[in-house]
Amino acid sequence: MHKGVTGIFSSGLDMLSLRQKPSNEIYKFWSLYQETWVRLYASSLITVAAINGSATAPGCALATACDSRVMAEGDHVIGHDETRTGWLVPNWVKFGMVNLIGFKETERSFQKGTIFSPEDAQKIGLVDMVVPKDDLMTSVRIRLKESASMEDDLRISTKNMMRRETTENLNLRKQEDVTNMTVYSLLEHVQESIVDTNAQYLGWKPVPWPSG
Amino acid sequence: MHKGVTGIFSSGLDMLSLRQKPSNEIYKFWSLYQETWVRLYASSLITVAAINGSATAPGCALATACDSRVMAEGDHVIGHDETRTGWLVPNWVKFGMVNLIGFKETERSFQKGTIFSPEDAQKIGLVDMVVPKDDLMTSVRIRLKESASMEDDLRISTKNMMRRETTENLNLRKQEDVTNMTVYSLLEHVQESIVDTNAQYLGWKPVPWPSG
Amino acid sequence: MHKGVTGIFSSGLDMLSLRQKPSNEIYKFWSLYQETWVRLYASSLITVAAINGSATAPGCALATACDSRVMAEGDHVIGHDETRTGWLVPNWVKFGMVNLIGFKETERSFQKGTIFSPEDAQKIGLVDMVVPKDDLMTSVRIRLKESASMEDDLRISTKNMMRRETTENLNLRKQEDVTNMTVYSLLEHVQESIVDTNAQYLGWKPVPWPSG
Repeated sequence: MHKGVTGIFSSGLDMLSLRQKPSNEIYKFWSLYQETWVRLYASSLITVAAINGSATAPGCALATACDSRVMAEGDHVIGHDETRTGWLVPNWVKFGMVNLIGFKETERSFQKGTIFSPEDAQKIGLVDMVVPKDDLMTSVRIRLKESASMEDDLRISTKNMMRRETTENLNLRKQEDVTNMTVYSLLEHVQESIVDTNAQYLGWKPVPWPSG
Repeated sequence: MHKGVTGIFSSGLDMLSLRQKPSNEIYKFWSLYQETWVRLYASSLITVAAINGSATAPGCALATACDSRVMAEGDHVIGHDETRTGWLVPNWVKFGMVNLIGFKETERSFQKGTIFSPEDAQKIGLVDMVVPKDDLMTSVRIRLKESASMEDDLRISTKNMMRRETTENLNLRKQEDVTNMTVYSLLEHVQESIVDTNAQYLGWKPVPWPSG
Repeated sequence: MHKGVTGIFSSGLDMLSLRQKPSNEIYKFWSLYQETWVRLYASSLITVAAINGSATAPGCALATACDSRVMAEGDHVIGHDETRTGWLVPNWVKFGMVNLIGFKETERSFQKGTIFSPEDAQKIGLVDMVVPKDDLMTSVRIRLKESASMEDDLRISTKNMMRRETTENLNLRKQEDVTNMTVYSLLEHVQESIVDTNAQYLGWKPVPWPSG
């Protein structure tokens, strides 16, 4: 995974697409996010996140769903800052974080909307490696090759064995989790905050979420 | 949460109320403890434990159910010492500890009845902050204000998202968990040990548990 | 638990017994491994692993099922190296490791087939204590006595309370987990690799698994 915009790995979903929409469209939006996350988490492919810029909210979520994470040194951040911009972190995202940094740190970081520097992210286990920007793709390629040297059947079965229970659990509770996000999105004060939020937030331009 | 007795946050339940009682009263006793813990854990209020003295057994359990924990410096302790006084730690209490210090440390500390100094408790993650006794309530108030600065809907939804699965699980297994404690309480040698235990144990006076 | 062969605690199952066998015998083989692990994990006995040599794959798995682990200093290793020899780690084994070293470290070590020196194993929490070889049995006896000083009812109830959920979960999914191992064992390239693997692997002689 590698996004082209310099300095930003992925900063989020296009929240504007949730503004004044009927509930079934909002449901579809969160449903697509849930499916994308679970599919990436359970993917039989080798997935190494090449984090070449800030990876916040869904950007961080997609990174935690990968097999491992390499982040470029520099003045960018990673973490779930949804609450700082008035948004609820979806339940599926929790599992990726808890696996990497444990329950307590996950809860605390979600409540505060904490974002981490590459170095701090490595210290708490949120990323596996931090490298100079110019070495990012080389480091990622080395990791990919390492994983690819293992017999495919074995690598996939091992990944599946480790991740099966979480995947099953998320599939079982999909409707509940997506409904919770939909209900939250439809709250009046949340609807009203949508425009402001994106505009005011550090001047970051949200990367458009693929339309269903 | 703040208890008035100097030097003791909360040291336990009134075990004497389990002596020579019919099984349905013993069941009610543990049932009330379970409900109190789960309600506090899932509470939509902001809960910061102001630990101004020793917090052992249920005192520790109630602290782990809060959003965060601030402990006063000094010559007191926190932890689950139930086994040292001949008592079984209830299953619901496990989840609060595992969330904070992980499975292995929880199992070990329950088996040994380990109690921790404020400094050690902070090191393993059982409390979030240790402050001079005189600064305790100020520190707690700062934390409460911090949390209160977030939109209520968002704070509650985030807490609920993080804690829902454990709460649901504990509600599902309530009967089994409470029954286990009741059966244990009725063992002959446990019944016989009840008086001695409270008297001999460090001279602490148990804080009476609210009667149902 | 203590195995007599100098320098090897337990290095594995007798994989040759899976070569060109009907699927029901292969199923029985993995079923026996699953039952042994779960029974040891849930045992009401005090179980201290005295690791006097290398404990790899099932050797490590049995150690993680114990109450605690003491390892002798020296030139031997502990860990799950199944993938290095072309084998899948069974799902039940995962829970012992996750309890001790957390999800992320478990996943990483299974994918890479990482084996740890006694010192590194202690650092990550995989073993509780490392002692000179000559002190191993003394250290283990001290731990056993310590645990035995607690009332049996209480010790067993506490262990049961901590481990019940994992044990129940493993019993529920036994058929699925054993079937997965059976299907993997029957893959053509896995069958073909069985002889080579045992011969080439560091020259270790697998300890025969007790026949059902």
